Amino acid sequence: MATEQAIEDVVRRYVELVATGKPDEIVALYSAEATLEDPVGSGVRQGHAAIREFYQVIENMEQESELLTLRVAGNRAAFHFSLLTKVGDKQMALSPIDVMEFDEDAKITKMQAFWNQSDLSFT
Amino acid sequence: MATEQAIEDVVRRYVELVATGKPDEIVALYSAEATLEDPVGSGVRQGHAAIREFYQVIENMEQESELLTLRVAGNRAAFHFSLLTKVGDKQMALSPIDVMEFDEDAKITKMQAFWNQSDLSFT
Repeated sequence: MATEQAIEDVVRRYVELVATGKPDEIVALYSAEATLEDPVGSGVRQGHAAIREFYQVIENMEQESELLTLRVAGNRAAFHFSLLTKVGDKQMALSPIDVMEFDEDAKITKMQAFWNQSDLSFT
Repeated sequence: MATEQAIEDVVRRYVELVATGKPDEIVALYSAEATLEDPVGSGVRQGHAAIREFYQVIENMEQESELLTLRVAGNRAAFHFSLLTKVGDKQMALSPIDVMEFDEDAKITKMQAFWNQSDLSFT
């Protein structure tokens, strides 16, 4: 099983890369057969190609992220983070709670993001 | 599917009851065949009898709770809450992230709590 420290490192890297990374860097955190559901209820994507497609849209956005709370339990983690996205001269703010499962190499095997439209705010 | 409002109501009631409620009141929030894993990795309990046993231990504790963050997505919710427990003249603090699934009547069908020993603090 992945250690708590290894899982924490991947979560911190994930939150950083979601704001500033390349899709390929994010995809590399996932196992080959991983599933992604973001947000929960929107349908499950499986595998690197489908996961890359999901992160492709954020590639050219100007974003800032911050890890707010992280809880690791066994081979899983739940964390609350904030994501600020520049949209013209405004900012879109979202702070989801994500849940991830990890394999023995601390690759993400399952990701679920909890948020809905009403959690988006514009300032 | 349960509405977002119905799910939010159950989560708020759960957080309140965990601190001040009776085991039977908490169990009533769960469906008959519900599963509970608290913390994640510690084994899954199933059904009202096993779930009541879990909450029995907190019945006579002096506790305070607060819902910190709640995210609802589809028929599921993830939330961060704090729980303060009086232990002699000290306080034990824990603020897990819990994830729940709900049936069409907004009964909890699955609960998973994300925390580990290192998240406990004494003051």
